[in-house]
Amino acid sequence: MTATGPADLLERVLRGDRAAIARTITLIDRRPLDAPGLDAVLAPHTGRAATVGVTGAPGAGKSTLVGSMLKSAVRRNDRVAVLALDPVSPLTRGAVLGDRLRMEHTTSDERVFVRSMTADNGAGGLSLAAPFAIRALDAAGWPWIVIETVGVGQTEFDIVEAATTTVVVMNPGAGDEVQAVKAGLLEMADVFVLNKADRDGARTMRLDLERTVQHAAPGAWRPPIVETVASEDRGTDEVWAAIAAHRSWLTDTGAMPRRQQRLLRLALQGVLSAQLDARIASTMRSAEFAALLEDVQSGRTDLALAGASLLRGVLAP
Amino acid sequence: MTATGPADLLERVLRGDRAAIARTITLIDRRPLDAPGLDAVLAPHTGRAATVGVTGAPGAGKSTLVGSMLKSAVRRNDRVAVLALDPVSPLTRGAVLGDRLRMEHTTSDERVFVRSMTADNGAGGLSLAAPFAIRALDAAGWPWIVIETVGVGQTEFDIVEAATTTVVVMNPGAGDEVQAVKAGLLEMADVFVLNKADRDGARTMRLDLERTVQHAAPGAWRPPIVETVASEDRGTDEVWAAIAAHRSWLTDTGAMPRRQQRLLRLALQGVLSAQLDARIASTMRSAEFAALLEDVQSGRTDLALAGASLLRGVLAP
Repeated sequence: MTATGPADLLERVLRGDRAAIARTITLIDRRPLDAPGLDAVLAPHTGRAATVGVTGAPGAGKSTLVGSMLKSAVRRNDRVAVLALDPVSPLTRGAVLGDRLRMEHTTSDERVFVRSMTADNGAGGLSLAAPFAIRALDAAGWPWIVIETVGVGQTEFDIVEAATTTVVVMNPGAGDEVQAVKAGLLEMADVFVLNKADRDGARTMRLDLERTVQHAAPGAWRPPIVETVASEDRGTDEVWAAIAAHRSWLTDTGAMPRRQQRLLRLALQGVLSAQLDARIASTMRSAEFAALLEDVQSGRTDLALAGASLLRGVLAP
Repeated sequence: MTATGPADLLERVLRGDRAAIARTITLIDRRPLDAPGLDAVLAPHTGRAATVGVTGAPGAGKSTLVGSMLKSAVRRNDRVAVLALDPVSPLTRGAVLGDRLRMEHTTSDERVFVRSMTADNGAGGLSLAAPFAIRALDAAGWPWIVIETVGVGQTEFDIVEAATTTVVVMNPGAGDEVQAVKAGLLEMADVFVLNKADRDGARTMRLDLERTVQHAAPGAWRPPIVETVASEDRGTDEVWAAIAAHRSWLTDTGAMPRRQQRLLRLALQGVLSAQLDARIASTMRSAEFAALLEDVQSGRTDLALAGASLLRGVLAP
């Protein structure tokens, strides 16, 4: 398999060249269908990074936490890349992207790399591009890759859950959040961060979370609960310590390879979805589609028959 | 084509039986792949409803506006069905859905039907189920169907844009929103609602919007700008008047059939996507997939080759 992108660009990525990494992620973002070809060159150099997914309800302070985590890492001379996944909404895109761009421009430290990705081509675009961007950062030698979701869509959750360590950010007094955690997020969280821990209700929330993590199966990882006030850079060193402890646990128990498969699984799913989406889009531009639409509208056929007929066209080799 | 659901249920839908409609939408929501079969029975009775999509940034007051629109319609003895599309996020689902359920329980008026749909099966689920739910309400004889988005994902926008009339809700002082409108929402809006019009900045916002709609092509519909204070039920009659004017324009200019095709197009796209998603899911559960994942991880193959191999499996008849 030869690279579909310029080979010298990928050479520079492997040497850790920041501009080359930025350019490669832009290529992946704009032409996600080309990403697997680029990845084939980078693949032998992947698998070394620890990826950290950060998620939580809107307003939980995810961006502030990640900003504080960057400062904490830099103090220890660690190198961290951040990939921020933005929502798709045309209504909110401008504002949120603006925040991101500001963040990118203020982080001139060589030990930090911040990049945002939006899903301009629909949800499929992001679910294809993000795993490949993470792998490119891995190949470029970033030892820590933090994936932060701005959006709250299923695609963003899938990507955050595909990190080797998933951090779920909670706030005091958010009763609904605990409900949500009990309902489905418990299995996603490897580390709980109780942010804004100086606020009323922190103790109750901590007890709630402790009861929740007690239900971890024997021998399974029990998610630690770390209290932070990220806006004052309090507790963020402990967040890193919890992440490092989880990483060690994954390595020591032999669970790491299976965990790393999650991202590969997502990348493969993205490749398949994107290929099929391209076929659907092409079918929908066809004369056959326009004719079937007219037939459905006039009652000469129905959506079930029309769909079956179109499906045969999409599946044709 | 025979119905995959019970024929007497669909008979009751066609007679306008509320419980039967609710049950049918639940069926569509839970088993969207069965929806085309149900639709085949209902299809001859569709095409009479006017569908109104309501969208706007989070916090713009969409729910309040729709609530006030319901009161306004009932005062004129109009019958209105509301379909609210919820976001997918496991973190916010509980709270938003709770709001919806409360709204459903408080609307006991026979002239009003309120229903929410979430995308439990991922974005594909909603994009398949929502168009069919709208068609079921149409077949049941609801003359007005309001589609409200709670979420801000691309899927929700596609559905709202597939309405015969799309209402975009704005607020005073939201400079970013106007940017977003200029960037892409102008073509989506058939009616602009300037809600919270009693607030500072309403006049500036109105002038901004007026400049924006001036760019409408000659002969094209120029979206009216309606000022409302939905929380006080002010201006909502005028919103309906603007929607009715747009509907008349669509009918008078012969544009209505093409506009109605948007929903059919979305439904067909949903059918195709769902069928292919089912094939992808089945492929990802296969032993071949697990083996390829191991091969990628150990470097025996790469994601591009593995993806191509899996694609052949998905496309196999």
